[in-house]
Amino acid sequence: MSDENEYDDDYEPPPFIAEAQVNVSSEAPPDPVSSISKERDGKFDTLLMHQFLEGKAKSKQILKLYKSLERDPFLRATFNDYEITREQSRELSAVRINRMARYIETDSPEDFHRRLNLLTVYDPSTGIRIAVNLGLYVNCVKGNGTDEQYKYWCVTNQTKDINKLYGCFGMTELGHGSNVAGCETTATFDEETDEFVIDTPTISATKWWIGGAAHSATHSAIYARLIVKGKDYGVKTFVVPLRDTDHELLPGVAIGDIGSKMGREGVDNGWIQFSDVRIPRFFMLQKFCKVSREGKVTLPPLEQLSYISLLGGRVGMAVDSYRIIARFITIAVRYGVGRRQFQKPLAEDWDPEVQIMDYALHQRRLFPILALCYAMALGTSQLENEHTAILKDLEAAVKANDTKAINKSIGDTKSLFIDSGSLKSTNTWLAADCITECRQSCGGHGYSAYNGFGKAYDDWVVQCTWEGDNSVLAMSVGKTLIKNVEGVLSKGNKVGGSVAFLSNAKEYVKDLKKEYLTDEDVNSPSKILTALEVLIVRLCYSSLETLKSNGGDWDAISHTRVLLSKLRAHHYLLQNFIGQLSNADSSIRPFLDVLLRLYANAWVLDSFSADFLLNYVYPQSVKKLVNATRIPELCTEVRPRAILLTDSFLQPDMLLNSAIGKYDGNIYENYFGIVKEQNPAYPSKAPHSKILEDMLNRGSIDERSREELTDETKDLFKI
Amino acid sequence: MSDENEYDDDYEPPPFIAEAQVNVSSEAPPDPVSSISKERDGKFDTLLMHQFLEGKAKSKQILKLYKSLERDPFLRATFNDYEITREQSRELSAVRINRMARYIETDSPEDFHRRLNLLTVYDPSTGIRIAVNLGLYVNCVKGNGTDEQYKYWCVTNQTKDINKLYGCFGMTELGHGSNVAGCETTATFDEETDEFVIDTPTISATKWWIGGAAHSATHSAIYARLIVKGKDYGVKTFVVPLRDTDHELLPGVAIGDIGSKMGREGVDNGWIQFSDVRIPRFFMLQKFCKVSREGKVTLPPLEQLSYISLLGGRVGMAVDSYRIIARFITIAVRYGVGRRQFQKPLAEDWDPEVQIMDYALHQRRLFPILALCYAMALGTSQLENEHTAILKDLEAAVKANDTKAINKSIGDTKSLFIDSGSLKSTNTWLAADCITECRQSCGGHGYSAYNGFGKAYDDWVVQCTWEGDNSVLAMSVGKTLIKNVEGVLSKGNKVGGSVAFLSNAKEYVKDLKKEYLTDEDVNSPSKILTALEVLIVRLCYSSLETLKSNGGDWDAISHTRVLLSKLRAHHYLLQNFIGQLSNADSSIRPFLDVLLRLYANAWVLDSFSADFLLNYVYPQSVKKLVNATRIPELCTEVRPRAILLTDSFLQPDMLLNSAIGKYDGNIYENYFGIVKEQNPAYPSKAPHSKILEDMLNRGSIDERSREELTDETKDLFKI
Repeated sequence: MSDENEYDDDYEPPPFIAEAQVNVSSEAPPDPVSSISKERDGKFDTLLMHQFLEGKAKSKQILKLYKSLERDPFLRATFNDYEITREQSRELSAVRINRMARYIETDSPEDFHRRLNLLTVYDPSTGIRIAVNLGLYVNCVKGNGTDEQYKYWCVTNQTKDINKLYGCFGMTELGHGSNVAGCETTATFDEETDEFVIDTPTISATKWWIGGAAHSATHSAIYARLIVKGKDYGVKTFVVPLRDTDHELLPGVAIGDIGSKMGREGVDNGWIQFSDVRIPRFFMLQKFCKVSREGKVTLPPLEQLSYISLLGGRVGMAVDSYRIIARFITIAVRYGVGRRQFQKPLAEDWDPEVQIMDYALHQRRLFPILALCYAMALGTSQLENEHTAILKDLEAAVKANDTKAINKSIGDTKSLFIDSGSLKSTNTWLAADCITECRQSCGGHGYSAYNGFGKAYDDWVVQCTWEGDNSVLAMSVGKTLIKNVEGVLSKGNKVGGSVAFLSNAKEYVKDLKKEYLTDEDVNSPSKILTALEVLIVRLCYSSLETLKSNGGDWDAISHTRVLLSKLRAHHYLLQNFIGQLSNADSSIRPFLDVLLRLYANAWVLDSFSADFLLNYVYPQSVKKLVNATRIPELCTEVRPRAILLTDSFLQPDMLLNSAIGKYDGNIYENYFGIVKEQNPAYPSKAPHSKILEDMLNRGSIDERSREELTDETKDLFKI
Repeated sequence: MSDENEYDDDYEPPPFIAEAQVNVSSEAPPDPVSSISKERDGKFDTLLMHQFLEGKAKSKQILKLYKSLERDPFLRATFNDYEITREQSRELSAVRINRMARYIETDSPEDFHRRLNLLTVYDPSTGIRIAVNLGLYVNCVKGNGTDEQYKYWCVTNQTKDINKLYGCFGMTELGHGSNVAGCETTATFDEETDEFVIDTPTISATKWWIGGAAHSATHSAIYARLIVKGKDYGVKTFVVPLRDTDHELLPGVAIGDIGSKMGREGVDNGWIQFSDVRIPRFFMLQKFCKVSREGKVTLPPLEQLSYISLLGGRVGMAVDSYRIIARFITIAVRYGVGRRQFQKPLAEDWDPEVQIMDYALHQRRLFPILALCYAMALGTSQLENEHTAILKDLEAAVKANDTKAINKSIGDTKSLFIDSGSLKSTNTWLAADCITECRQSCGGHGYSAYNGFGKAYDDWVVQCTWEGDNSVLAMSVGKTLIKNVEGVLSKGNKVGGSVAFLSNAKEYVKDLKKEYLTDEDVNSPSKILTALEVLIVRLCYSSLETLKSNGGDWDAISHTRVLLSKLRAHHYLLQNFIGQLSNADSSIRPFLDVLLRLYANAWVLDSFSADFLLNYVYPQSVKKLVNATRIPELCTEVRPRAILLTDSFLQPDMLLNSAIGKYDGNIYENYFGIVKEQNPAYPSKAPHSKILEDMLNRGSIDERSREELTDETKDLFKI
């Protein structure tokens, strides 16, 4: 090796080459169990934390339901769920629906709702199949039908107990998604027979993506254009039967399977074409729009309330986002603590490799997600409560026909629309990103189906598209915020409800260069909240300026509208987190406080730093401080309690359904065990092995060529 | 409706409610074919554009290969590829490997390489199975073995023709991914028998993820710790046979299927455990490290060159990123142009809905991706050339044992390491994001398997993890950049190769608040390039400052190191795009110029705006201008040629393999046709229908309860 220095040795090769000189002892294989269990040593009570996150009563309910789900032979998740074909997924899902149909008869409505919510974390296909029936179909009938109609379709017929009828929701068409008003399906009133004729006039009018249509549903609640005496009254809702009691398709109803999808293979999505299908007039849902025997159409003013039935789905998806992130951050943190990779510089041979959770970058990838998850837990719990309360008030007000109370409720639904719209879109996007980041943080093992990421991601991402495409929804929220600020600035309006802070708009735009956050303030969540409010207001203000100069072209500012919706979602989460912190027991409050500050620094100040800087809400020094100092410091504070903070979600191994994510931390044994169990060694060769063997045992190309290419053949022909 | 005004009508409901008053005629179903074909009207020659993107010779080669692949009965993609089970995927893949084994015998090496590259766009499972054998295994033998060893294992045995032997690459272990130096598998020299004993000492030492191991491979090139006379010499490479000519596992070799994965189901990844398997000494690859008959170990200095064989994979993945983005941006733009949704405000009943590609937000979501794709096409083509040239020079230099030439080549590989490392990690991350954005832009239809997104994404994302985990790779690149700047600043070094601009470091940090980009400059790609160089240098500089104050803790600045790698990747793409533009024919140059400026504005100035602002490279006004004005304007300029600019990738329908993305633009007919074809109507009920029917036909809970719960029963017992 005397000539070593002849060669340029200043080279910086990839780390695994650079470190090749460091010996790692083969005597000390990794011991993830003790790495993880060591970090559980009684630093705080995870049950207390769970109670704080979910509320005491809900925490108890959830633990009771976890126990029931874990033990239920049909409902519990298994690693086999990662192996099955589409048809098997659908059968499994049918089995689980049937099982859930027993629980719905005995659970309280709140327990059943929560049971469904928890099942959905690991089996979203079954979750949505039930939600389409009980959520979309039943709510559509309830929201758009008269009391008698609801009673007939849902109670008498036991639909709401998943019995007799099974409903699907026929809104979207092949050519019409977000713009429901563009639906082409027609419902033409035939005065002579007192019927509606339901028809699919074109291919683009084919009802598309209809969950449950392919195999389960007996009835549909569909959106179709009401045509009476040649006049088009726009899109209304109708109950149209699809299958008889023998479960055979009715005449005129053409249904097909939508086939293979990115995920949710357990759901029997279908397409539906109606060919002049006749339904009695009273199958039209007539709470609002009414068609009389003579074809007189009345459109009462409260029709706008019919959309409220859709908000429940959005609230649910905001909550789902929290639970799915909790699932994967638990897995990723356990893996990060148990996994070791690379030795420290100057380590001795016998030193173990470093826990990857100790690397600054790994902390920075995962701990902000953990903090976000806490913010979402508290925020979406609050959103659920808000939704329940508003719905209850509205129902009471409408029942009492109390105009004042109705107006109050309509005001409340404004907040709910903004809150659920911004949180549905923002949270579902964030959840997709968080699942991805957690997966990548587990390296190659994140790609194994048995660790749960792949199926969960594929099942998840449709949440960004359905029940209000995230971009469309966010644009709509952004528009509402801008209009609110316009009202404050031009008419001196006061904004109520959850975005009351917009009423301060005038002050925040008086001096557009006035800064609202100093370096010292980055530790103060409430000051960060104010800074965020200033940013939202200033973005609304600059949007209004743009609208003035572009002739009111809202389309041109849609990018900012989406941004506003995201900011508003974080505002909701941050405000709520701050508000709830004081309720926490003093034994856990300090840890929550760290997470709150990490959340506010990483997801608000850092993520949107360009916008803060551009709008002079804070100076460059804040960005530098947050990015280079505060986030790493806060991550270091989280580090010793990372395991307990994820344990606190109390999600059982069954729900995590991840070989590397189990509570016991025995990562490698568990993972290898499951791989072996799911992939028996017999037969020793692949069924298709002969293809490979024949290929490898083939002769060379010369041996396989007939003699036709040889010189001898050439000579034969003398050409 | 007289009481309408009693209710608050200032409400901003979701758009589909807001627009419900707008009638959409059911007489004019969408006509995507004419929408799309109209935009093809001879604006420029797409073949000319293709030749510019790929180079004239490569363009010709690619079109020839597309023709061959499209027609080949085994190699062509079909919609059935989206339906099949894991075992069917693996069989299909075996069939395709066998077919490719015929082409390798007749194609030129360049054609075969390109054929594999193109096949990989739609069947990455087959692509990687072949690449593991020819790329990883053969290159490992070539890079680490002597000429005789290479000849024996690869030529004589026809491995390089996919015949006789089939190799796999045994690097990673269950407990060891990025840190190859931590491998636990041992290769202990037995002087008595002149053999190595290969052993897996612990569960974490199990070779894991080994592509081809489960069913195909006959041999493995493995990484194991060389132990001679009790001394551990670190990780070296060995050829270990796995299966005999009957394709049966050899004694002592335990192999299992790794089972279900997120994607790439066609790949037979396996795990391997060796139990004291003996191989002759000459099975150790001994180009560098040599073990003599007597157990004398020599480690010559050039061992660092052994990693070079891994760079080819990274270059390939950078190129793959371009082609996969091209595939999905083509689909998304065609759909965006053909799809219509919502009418314009104040539109008449008979006006068609708006093409969604005309919405500002839709343009902003897709056109930057289109621009990025062009930048990647040109940049990765250049990277491929760079790689080929350097490898050729190095081989010649080593063969001639020319120290000076070897040193020159080592210098070149420094650039190649930075370029391939930053482009592999950045491009593969970006590709994952772009597939996602394109999918979401197609709304619900993006979720159908028949449109290609789901499978492609699931197959894709492993690229971010394998052959150099993106984060680890990016950290390594960032470190090299920082060290280079340190050399310039402290020793006055001159940096050569592709990062020569770092030599200007002193100037860029002289006045850290000197701005390098004004509002006028945002139209000048070369000024943007300079600004980017300044940003890179200043980030390196501030990292060095941090290192000074933290005692040289590189870990603490890993976040910035990753950022630097991303910036460097964009620097490479931007510099190259600028350089190539002048070669373009004048008939296409103006369109390329728009894309170049859009790329530079969106992906450089806007994406990293917080860093530019923080480092005073440009003032707030630039960010505002770019974000609010320039990007939307450039998108508007792209809009009329969007179809042609995606057509120019010339990817055939077979390769796109997407129902909504076909060239003819007949979105709805194609899509509906494929859904029907793939999902025959018979049987009319699901195989598991009885589960659902029995559930729906069950009696009520009272009917099903035995009498045991009734009062009558209670009375019986008198308790």
